Amino acid sequence: MADKRIKVAVTGAAGHIGYALLFRLASGEIFGAQTEMDLSLLELESALPPLKGVGMELEDCAYPLLRSVVQTADPDIAFKDADWALLVGSVPRKAGMERRDLLKINGAIFTVQGKSISENAKPTCKVLVIGNPCNTNAYIAKAAAKNIPAKNFFAMTMLDQNRACAQLAQKAKANVCEVKNLVIWGNHSTTQYPDFYHATIGGRPAAQAIVDEMWLKTTFIETVQKRGAEVIKARGLSSAGSAANAAGDAVKRLITPTPQGEFFSMAVSSDGSYGIGEGLMFSYPIRSDGKSWEIVQGIGHNEFAQAKIDATSQELLSEKEAVQEFVGR
Amino acid sequence: MADKRIKVAVTGAAGHIGYALLFRLASGEIFGAQTEMDLSLLELESALPPLKGVGMELEDCAYPLLRSVVQTADPDIAFKDADWALLVGSVPRKAGMERRDLLKINGAIFTVQGKSISENAKPTCKVLVIGNPCNTNAYIAKAAAKNIPAKNFFAMTMLDQNRACAQLAQKAKANVCEVKNLVIWGNHSTTQYPDFYHATIGGRPAAQAIVDEMWLKTTFIETVQKRGAEVIKARGLSSAGSAANAAGDAVKRLITPTPQGEFFSMAVSSDGSYGIGEGLMFSYPIRSDGKSWEIVQGIGHNEFAQAKIDATSQELLSEKEAVQEFVGR
Repeated sequence: MADKRIKVAVTGAAGHIGYALLFRLASGEIFGAQTEMDLSLLELESALPPLKGVGMELEDCAYPLLRSVVQTADPDIAFKDADWALLVGSVPRKAGMERRDLLKINGAIFTVQGKSISENAKPTCKVLVIGNPCNTNAYIAKAAAKNIPAKNFFAMTMLDQNRACAQLAQKAKANVCEVKNLVIWGNHSTTQYPDFYHATIGGRPAAQAIVDEMWLKTTFIETVQKRGAEVIKARGLSSAGSAANAAGDAVKRLITPTPQGEFFSMAVSSDGSYGIGEGLMFSYPIRSDGKSWEIVQGIGHNEFAQAKIDATSQELLSEKEAVQEFVGR
Repeated sequence: MADKRIKVAVTGAAGHIGYALLFRLASGEIFGAQTEMDLSLLELESALPPLKGVGMELEDCAYPLLRSVVQTADPDIAFKDADWALLVGSVPRKAGMERRDLLKINGAIFTVQGKSISENAKPTCKVLVIGNPCNTNAYIAKAAAKNIPAKNFFAMTMLDQNRACAQLAQKAKANVCEVKNLVIWGNHSTTQYPDFYHATIGGRPAAQAIVDEMWLKTTFIETVQKRGAEVIKARGLSSAGSAANAAGDAVKRLITPTPQGEFFSMAVSSDGSYGIGEGLMFSYPIRSDGKSWEIVQGIGHNEFAQAKIDATSQELLSEKEAVQEFVGR
């Protein structure tokens, strides 16, 4: 029997990732079979009619754990008393749009949402940003959410981690569950650094299991960095099922104690670890005790790795510059 | 750790329901955390490029239980050694198409697939038809599959059952998990009979918990019968997430012993129970011991219910007539 009840707000709820995510949330797959759920779905006014259909379908699943579903275009209603906010909705990059414009359009959205979360959600609310550019969107939301601790903000690099693990497993002809501690450093973008040096496959360093350092340093990294674009090319649509799955994985990793000796990837508000600018939403190796988390310290980087980390850190700094108007100086 | 490995074939794998279903299959949500899975995805030649993208996304989930994914347009490859065949793909009704034409177009598809399952799948393969008109599609596949017992064929009325339970719970202001034994009789179509007389809510007969027999006999039944069309009207797309969820529920109900005193809805090959023509794929109250199933006997029907059952049975008979060319006389 359920012994807990939480409210989860999801933005962009009628979009492809939202649609893939909601049924997993409501089924109990992510927060577990002991947790009843109130779902609160935020969409643009124009998407409320299809969102109504999504609400009907959630009803039609007869999920025992799903207690209510609210559909709204008003963030203050959506985030009211939320325990978790999963920020899926964002404006995607369109042909001809500069990255700087993209950052600004989303900056406005995430300022509103961060402020609304701050004023309406529980002060313990945890916020996972999935909508891209997710690191900087999370950075903006965090800056706008004065009442929520910075530690409660996350941006998702779990999809990158899963993609990287799958690529390593395939190359090593191993089962993907044998790949551990593959961490994404930095930005969820093409500058991310999937750190194969500290990953293990079947208990052995990945670079020993895959005796092809050139492949690891080039093809592997590029494949992970550009995987999103490849999926779009094949499907004609961006990743939705795998993104929703990664969002579920990210939440589960945060609410479950991390096994001894392991860590996972999550962009969190930097405390300066590894020389990264304080407050940047930077993906690090993270461990959780099921309630709070910490950045794993003392991981050494060679020159190659350090250059990758510097590049992705640099990109995040320039994104920060581009959105400075939203966070004040 | 996994102690079992099965092969599951899914048709229409790049479609909306297929896309919603595959991630749940691969995650272990349906067959359980002890069952490793080989997925075999069948699509039309023209849908192989997007299907490739779906395969990439499945890979990108790093599912520990997913051992392989085959993508093919050849049924003989797709169904090779399958333990389960989930037949999601079918030709939907288009504007101006007569039901008779629809039955015939699908008749051809399900004849090919039934024959291929018979010749390629394990002789113990179980076949769940989700693609509509699912009862008659299953009837045709069963007739074409000479090597597979008729008992192994199912057509899905679980979505109707879930929809009906949700409507009853809403009306009774109860949690949906308190609604039990709501059974759909007959065809997965607008003639289906959602049997509220034998359903219970919180242990009481539904008709006592909802003291409004007129509502039950009219609004309730019509709402369930026409729910699919209402979802399309709202979403602009047909039910996918809820259909995939119901497919998962249907499989789980078949592979799990049914709790004492309960039953669920599934269209199976009639043995003549309740006066239904032998061999028709008719939705009955079913119990499973986790391996095999039986039709629950001895349920009494009043005149109102009997008329509904006669009507849906009559419709299935006329569908059978329309596809007789595919099954021989």
